Amino acid sequence: MNEVLMQRLSWVNYRNRVLNDQAVVLLPCGALEQHGPHLPLGTDALLSTAVATDVARQLGGIVAPAFNYGYKSQPKCGGGQHFCGTTSVDGNNLSQMTRDVVREFSRHGVRRLALIDGHYENQWFLTEGIELAMRDLSLNGTRTPALRVVRLEYWDFCTGPTLAKVFPDGFPGYALEHAAVMETSMMLHYHADLVSLDDIPDEAPADFPDYDSYPTRTSWVPLSGVLSSARGASAQKGAWLADEVSSRIAAALKAEFNDA
Amino acid sequence: MNEVLMQRLSWVNYRNRVLNDQAVVLLPCGALEQHGPHLPLGTDALLSTAVATDVARQLGGIVAPAFNYGYKSQPKCGGGQHFCGTTSVDGNNLSQMTRDVVREFSRHGVRRLALIDGHYENQWFLTEGIELAMRDLSLNGTRTPALRVVRLEYWDFCTGPTLAKVFPDGFPGYALEHAAVMETSMMLHYHADLVSLDDIPDEAPADFPDYDSYPTRTSWVPLSGVLSSARGASAQKGAWLADEVSSRIAAALKAEFNDA
Amino acid sequence: MNEVLMQRLSWVNYRNRVLNDQAVVLLPCGALEQHGPHLPLGTDALLSTAVATDVARQLGGIVAPAFNYGYKSQPKCGGGQHFCGTTSVDGNNLSQMTRDVVREFSRHGVRRLALIDGHYENQWFLTEGIELAMRDLSLNGTRTPALRVVRLEYWDFCTGPTLAKVFPDGFPGYALEHAAVMETSMMLHYHADLVSLDDIPDEAPADFPDYDSYPTRTSWVPLSGVLSSARGASAQKGAWLADEVSSRIAAALKAEFNDA
Amino acid sequence: MNEVLMQRLSWVNYRNRVLNDQAVVLLPCGALEQHGPHLPLGTDALLSTAVATDVARQLGGIVAPAFNYGYKSQPKCGGGQHFCGTTSVDGNNLSQMTRDVVREFSRHGVRRLALIDGHYENQWFLTEGIELAMRDLSLNGTRTPALRVVRLEYWDFCTGPTLAKVFPDGFPGYALEHAAVMETSMMLHYHADLVSLDDIPDEAPADFPDYDSYPTRTSWVPLSGVLSSARGASAQKGAWLADEVSSRIAAALKAEFNDA
Amino acid sequence: MNEVLMQRLSWVNYRNRVLNDQAVVLLPCGALEQHGPHLPLGTDALLSTAVATDVARQLGGIVAPAFNYGYKSQPKCGGGQHFCGTTSVDGNNLSQMTRDVVREFSRHGVRRLALIDGHYENQWFLTEGIELAMRDLSLNGTRTPALRVVRLEYWDFCTGPTLAKVFPDGFPGYALEHAAVMETSMMLHYHADLVSLDDIPDEAPADFPDYDSYPTRTSWVPLSGVLSSARGASAQKGAWLADEVSSRIAAALKAEFNDA
Amino acid sequence: MNEVLMQRLSWVNYRNRVLNDQAVVLLPCGALEQHGPHLPLGTDALLSTAVATDVARQLGGIVAPAFNYGYKSQPKCGGGQHFCGTTSVDGNNLSQMTRDVVREFSRHGVRRLALIDGHYENQWFLTEGIELAMRDLSLNGTRTPALRVVRLEYWDFCTGPTLAKVFPDGFPGYALEHAAVMETSMMLHYHADLVSLDDIPDEAPADFPDYDSYPTRTSWVPLSGVLSSARGASAQKGAWLADEVSSRIAAALKAEFNDA
Repeated sequence: MNEVLMQRLSWVNYRNRVLNDQAVVLLPCGALEQHGPHLPLGTDALLSTAVATDVARQLGGIVAPAFNYGYKSQPKCGGGQHFCGTTSVDGNNLSQMTRDVVREFSRHGVRRLALIDGHYENQWFLTEGIELAMRDLSLNGTRTPALRVVRLEYWDFCTGPTLAKVFPDGFPGYALEHAAVMETSMMLHYHADLVSLDDIPDEAPADFPDYDSYPTRTSWVPLSGVLSSARGASAQKGAWLADEVSSRIAAALKAEFNDA
Repeated sequence: MNEVLMQRLSWVNYRNRVLNDQAVVLLPCGALEQHGPHLPLGTDALLSTAVATDVARQLGGIVAPAFNYGYKSQPKCGGGQHFCGTTSVDGNNLSQMTRDVVREFSRHGVRRLALIDGHYENQWFLTEGIELAMRDLSLNGTRTPALRVVRLEYWDFCTGPTLAKVFPDGFPGYALEHAAVMETSMMLHYHADLVSLDDIPDEAPADFPDYDSYPTRTSWVPLSGVLSSARGASAQKGAWLADEVSSRIAAALKAEFNDA
Repeated sequence: MNEVLMQRLSWVNYRNRVLNDQAVVLLPCGALEQHGPHLPLGTDALLSTAVATDVARQLGGIVAPAFNYGYKSQPKCGGGQHFCGTTSVDGNNLSQMTRDVVREFSRHGVRRLALIDGHYENQWFLTEGIELAMRDLSLNGTRTPALRVVRLEYWDFCTGPTLAKVFPDGFPGYALEHAAVMETSMMLHYHADLVSLDDIPDEAPADFPDYDSYPTRTSWVPLSGVLSSARGASAQKGAWLADEVSSRIAAALKAEFNDA
Repeated sequence: MNEVLMQRLSWVNYRNRVLNDQAVVLLPCGALEQHGPHLPLGTDALLSTAVATDVARQLGGIVAPAFNYGYKSQPKCGGGQHFCGTTSVDGNNLSQMTRDVVREFSRHGVRRLALIDGHYENQWFLTEGIELAMRDLSLNGTRTPALRVVRLEYWDFCTGPTLAKVFPDGFPGYALEHAAVMETSMMLHYHADLVSLDDIPDEAPADFPDYDSYPTRTSWVPLSGVLSSARGASAQKGAWLADEVSSRIAAALKAEFNDA
Repeated sequence: MNEVLMQRLSWVNYRNRVLNDQAVVLLPCGALEQHGPHLPLGTDALLSTAVATDVARQLGGIVAPAFNYGYKSQPKCGGGQHFCGTTSVDGNNLSQMTRDVVREFSRHGVRRLALIDGHYENQWFLTEGIELAMRDLSLNGTRTPALRVVRLEYWDFCTGPTLAKVFPDGFPGYALEHAAVMETSMMLHYHADLVSLDDIPDEAPADFPDYDSYPTRTSWVPLSGVLSSARGASAQKGAWLADEVSSRIAAALKAEFNDA
Repeated sequence: MNEVLMQRLSWVNYRNRVLNDQAVVLLPCGALEQHGPHLPLGTDALLSTAVATDVARQLGGIVAPAFNYGYKSQPKCGGGQHFCGTTSVDGNNLSQMTRDVVREFSRHGVRRLALIDGHYENQWFLTEGIELAMRDLSLNGTRTPALRVVRLEYWDFCTGPTLAKVFPDGFPGYALEHAAVMETSMMLHYHADLVSLDDIPDEAPADFPDYDSYPTRTSWVPLSGVLSSARGASAQKGAWLADEVSSRIAAALKAEFNDA
């Protein structure tokens, strides 16, 4: 099987894949962020890389090295910036990094680029980075004729039936799915050695108001950093999620990129 | 009744309200963005200002002048940047403007500030602006002892029962609510003279995939810019929405700010 | 009469006006700044919008939403940054906002844009914003063939005879005209309900040295924030000023834009 | 006589002068800009340095190396950016350079700093740089207890009687004094070898409208770049101007800095 | 043995290590850059991570996730930006990312941080990032009492005797050691599966002038991207280099950090 | 002989030289930095300007005004930022200033530009400034057809034989050559009046570890700021160095620029 990790390819092989095969390039966008006592700090980069790798295998694609540092953790989606270990960057810096990298892939001759986001807080700063790069590229006439960039959050590719299997008591929504059943299950599937099931906390789920408040009201956030219980997680659920997400992303990208 | 618009207060009166009454300051954050053929370009600034004004009346608060220009319109929430009339700013510029203004309110002695966002795309850049200002302010020891900043999107304060009244056939979710029933109803309530009911288009709702794609696939977006039909809008529904949203925001702010 | 406020136009109507009528777009640039105890904080945005609206009516033009926040108040022209209520932004942020907006109007197909500045401190940061946008636009060949941008401070359009009528004892120069006779008269003309004549202070005019000094020497500035007396103000004078300024700006823009 | 040029002092001597003598530091702010066929491109840096040197001699001060590159030339004050040889920087870059340098002088222990501006277009970007540095310095408690920064344009220190001698037919105002009688006279006084009197052009003075227009209307500007005739210039006039300006600046700084 | 990769630690374990053990944190700084046909694009991140991991094992330290994208490749040290696959970021963006991350480690309570640079071009932008963070941190009094940051390029820790063993015909200097004997040997030691010895090119070493020239003179650079031959590389040499570099870095950090 | 200093040329003469003679433009890049008790703060700008002037005379070139302020002094190359008198700018600000100026020379029609760097710490920020400008210029098709930019550090043009004459006991390497034999000799050659031989300190040379450490370990740096003794300096050695460096730079530029 072809190597999918760009970091492990020589530039000559990469060039062949990009120019001859018009390989899709996938850029995983993670974070270094608390994920409770049972999951590692690198969960978002590990999962987005794992999903991107599965997608790449289905598409003959290439996975670029992950963005290891993401936008600031927010209480409602990642617990907040008061946790030790959470290591975040300013929004504009993430956007500028994205802009640079998109511009570089365009210079390489990449025509099909997808950012696979695994950290909710990244979304809008990645979007702005892509927007800025596209403006730059259309400025100068050097844009690869058909460079198309997709940005997605991988969990959006779960379907209702799968969610029903994963959450037999009903899917409570994505809002509190931080270090909870979905991420824990997927980590059990991809990186079981990094999950400490015994450390899953027994706290009640977080209950947030309809607004955000600054400075962070740390009292809103469970001390463990887990927004709702990960008790129901299993490797089997992780496999269901991973398979569905990666195959549906692969299908979506195939359709989107063929329609250039 | 007290004047609520900061733009119309003298600095002496404003100072009295801020320092003596510890008045809440509300900052409406809008956009200049297509809202279909039946609503005006300024809808987001007009509605966030109207809601903020209603809230201010309930709290004895002050409404600062709106941010009239917002972050770039995205196809799935605002139609996209290809529409004539949509006039947007870069994300970092919006964040920096927010940072400056928060810092200034802190210098004034404001202890209770709420950003009332009326344009979905603004959310994360406002958040970053607040984060940056809070970092600046905690750097230097000049932070008003109890400056607290809330950021909210006003529609998040609608309750299920009201949505059930507004959408008798079932609430389809916020995703396609751009220039649709909610905004049109609220404009009929607050600014009926700016709504042209005859121009409401008869298009099918937009149907978006689970990812975003750049450059904009304009074929995804209805030509009118309306993401789902505004046919069911009415002034009565607008009144229900406006009353609920403003009273629930007022109650939330009262609770949040008293708990300093 | 046609609607002149862009915020109140649908994008379809705006597009017709811009593309079919080649309508002039006017962008009022204000501030949120102390204007003494007798004028409101929003004076600069209110007056620049009012003048722009008068000009637009004469030209069939469109008035974009104002920049509500301006560059930092300086002691000699606006009293300085130590006043409560004055809410200013960093110079580069104002320039970047200007750059973005000029670029957007160019994308719309606007060929004739005029920034109507009502806050002296804004001038050079608006200029830089326009310069940056023009550089961007000439970079990429997408510049509207004849986009021309004018920037003006409205008071420069007063003629000597009018000044002689407004200042029967001799025009003391623009230097101390902050919250003084001109602005107060124009506010009496356009927004009489926002002027509190009884609160006009009885201070001597400010007397500044030939240099600027930082940090602000607050002792240079009258406590009221008024740089010279507004006692001679009247609605009649405001009408003279408003009429002359708006008609002369309209004439200048007509000449300038026809000579593309 | 003491060396006044910082560039020529060792750090040990500089430190003695700053810490022991509390020497005033003067920073000349120039430009590289066309000054007609008879004056050199470096006129603004040369004159501001010469004036600063004269002032420093009177105050026992130190002259820092000039800012050799200034903000973009504007048609009405410097001819505009279309001239070959004019070499300008973006506004924010000038502000940031100013911010850095002010911060550094503060670190040195300088308590009295004066920016001597010789290029009209610099003024507001220097101001912003000082404002930003003062904000930085007050943030961290390391501000030299009495750091005070003055910014001035040297020509503002000419008095009416001197202007009457220099312009026997009446002073036409500073507006067109670019490469004209004042600058040419002062260059004849300070740097006669760099003035080519035979090359003074015989053009009519420029006649500008009340607004600015972008892109530059080059037809507004005399081909030579001289905004009004330098014919009346003489070394004698230059001496009058230089003497008055430098002695009045020295007196103003002495008063201002003693009043710390 | 303790886990050394921060990405694989839970925040609780990381916190214990940082706060209780005062663990050294090591941040590998790499690039995505052509390294000839025989080494992978990720060589700099892989080697700096491998060295950091060896050092961490000796110190009980923690290895943060690498910076996967580095500053622009230059012809004389990395071949230049014209190679397909080289994916670089602007200098200021790298500095800002560094600034953010240093600030975050300080917030965590880290007292001992070392940036292990594996990409020559990164050096000065990392330095600036550290300088900016230290300025930020000393501004606000929240700096961890003894936060000390070291930045090093790992190859500087080779001693003469080892170089003599690695280069029996004499060490030609670091200048052309890109994708050459040192990096290839270390990759054979750490990641033998990623080295394709058969693809080592047979080109003469590059011969550069004493200056740099822009735009890139691609004719200066061997087509393969290898600046001097990697023919003499071996896993044994890689082991010598890796052992010496990691043990000497560990010793240096121990001494430096104990001398706080 | 032709005037070589751009600051002293009129724009008309400059234009002739640039457009008719395709004159090389040389930009000296200095610093304001401690150089021990025996050399002035402006040493780097003075020497780079002197070398550039010698080169310009040989090439018929033009010397632009120096960058008088450089990047932050580092302990190992310039002593560090803790010295009084050292006055530095942030890295990005130096890059942006460089970008602006390169862009301006391109607008003038300059085809051959060389940055003559005299401050080691500047190198990478100048490089980035050139890179950014070249990107800007290739964006818009206005790049002078053959604009080529060279950046060099002048000392790299010393040959082994000359170093052998200057250092009869063996050249210790450039590492500690700050305010030492080379710079002192060249100052004796070019600006003997600014060298105070009696003040050369009698300290041992600095002895630095293989890494950098922040905040600055001031104990690493001799109190005088001199990194190794300047005792062996002489005007004769300065003449040898200056002659070789300027003639070899002139030859290199001639070859490089003719090969456009």
